[in-house]
Amino acid sequence: MLIVGERINTSRKKVNQAVEQRDAVYIQTDILAQLEAGAELIGVNAGSRRDSELEDFIWLIDVIQEAAPKAHLCLDSPNPEVLRQAVNRVNQAPMLNSTTAEKARFQDMAPVIHSCECDVLALCIDDRGIPKSADQIYDNAGFLVLELEKIGVPRQRIYMDTVLTAVSTNQQAALLSFDVNRRIHANFDGVNTICGLSNVSFGLPKRSLINSTYIALAMAAGLDAAICNPLDDRLMETIFTTEVLLGKDQWCQRYTCAVRSGIIKA
Amino acid sequence: MLIVGERINTSRKKVNQAVEQRDAVYIQTDILAQLEAGAELIGVNAGSRRDSELEDFIWLIDVIQEAAPKAHLCLDSPNPEVLRQAVNRVNQAPMLNSTTAEKARFQDMAPVIHSCECDVLALCIDDRGIPKSADQIYDNAGFLVLELEKIGVPRQRIYMDTVLTAVSTNQQAALLSFDVNRRIHANFDGVNTICGLSNVSFGLPKRSLINSTYIALAMAAGLDAAICNPLDDRLMETIFTTEVLLGKDQWCQRYTCAVRSGIIKA
Repeated sequence: MLIVGERINTSRKKVNQAVEQRDAVYIQTDILAQLEAGAELIGVNAGSRRDSELEDFIWLIDVIQEAAPKAHLCLDSPNPEVLRQAVNRVNQAPMLNSTTAEKARFQDMAPVIHSCECDVLALCIDDRGIPKSADQIYDNAGFLVLELEKIGVPRQRIYMDTVLTAVSTNQQAALLSFDVNRRIHANFDGVNTICGLSNVSFGLPKRSLINSTYIALAMAAGLDAAICNPLDDRLMETIFTTEVLLGKDQWCQRYTCAVRSGIIKA
Repeated sequence: MLIVGERINTSRKKVNQAVEQRDAVYIQTDILAQLEAGAELIGVNAGSRRDSELEDFIWLIDVIQEAAPKAHLCLDSPNPEVLRQAVNRVNQAPMLNSTTAEKARFQDMAPVIHSCECDVLALCIDDRGIPKSADQIYDNAGFLVLELEKIGVPRQRIYMDTVLTAVSTNQQAALLSFDVNRRIHANFDGVNTICGLSNVSFGLPKRSLINSTYIALAMAAGLDAAICNPLDDRLMETIFTTEVLLGKDQWCQRYTCAVRSGIIKA
């Protein structure tokens, strides 16, 4: 399970304040904690700061790379120009978050994606908005695989986001996501799947409980990656344990190490 | 998810002591806590007390029924004679734990099963011992369904135990159990599946974490019931949450009630 740390997002009050005050130490402390906890990519998002997104984004990248020069970044912006400038700034090939199956957006993003050897987070949204059915999500995934391959992105670099929604508003949301996950893996060999984990628990209490139970079920359905909070103990404990139960942790080595080192506190 | 409380078992030191000292209050306090926590059946097992199993077993039944006259009991003994006498003592139709696909044992158990309207826990073990493969477990399940139907047990009363084993000794143990669960549901309409949950975590640290993660995955694979500890908070929280994610908790009502009443503490 590939963990994309979600914490450096200016929609979070403390991060916004740190960006506002150019508090590099706050950002660096946070990302080092995320890496220590097991994040393989660090998400960066300054989209809430519309008037200064570009300069704030570049500042964040520089600050993060100062503390962790080899960090892989997941660059998250709705603005292709922000992403275009950001990809020239990063030390490691980034993940670009995101393109979609919306025609105009895909056209805007294609040159940025084409300009570097990046991983691509592809969101299964089309011009009709948030998909209503598994078929619609699956069709959008098909469009995205086809179009991304046309511009030279190999399947291994595609992370298909199947647009996880809240179980509080749609009881079938989780089941639908498992179904689409299985279909993508069965039909687009090599393509990875990813989700924005916390969406599933929106509107309900004890969100960490829902997020962590969801991830176990989603991993069993083939989910490869999640944008989530690696500092959520229950979540990370569940991921370690699910790897054991799915036969992916030889001799339970990673699990028992995590218990011994205190990562698993349960 | 049907919960069979596993706590009243004389292989547990405190329960053995309570039975030894005829401490009815200890037993009654425990079973009331199990019922309060959500157990629908109370398991009773005095198998470790070989010299006095029958009288201890009957004492336990009487003590439990004194405190909870309507409690459903899961009567667990390897000795058909103990079960024969016990079924005459219970107020409610019990679950009998267990028969197996071992020829002699099935013959011994058949008259006891036939003597009352009981649920039957059928363990997919045959004369070769613990099954080595999903096919062997599935074949034993087929034998048990056929033979139990012959003696008049409807499928709805059969709880098929697919012999969950430890992931510490067999990395495929959990995956194998999911596979067999799906096959039993696909091919024996109406039959329920059950597992002895704690077997899966034998030999590993933080067993509650493994048990609770396993149960989420097993529920997604169709598991109907578990013999487990209903006083394990993490386990019960995970069961409530999994029901939400599998679309089985309309409007998330049971989940939000459990949060409000403090059953979900997470």
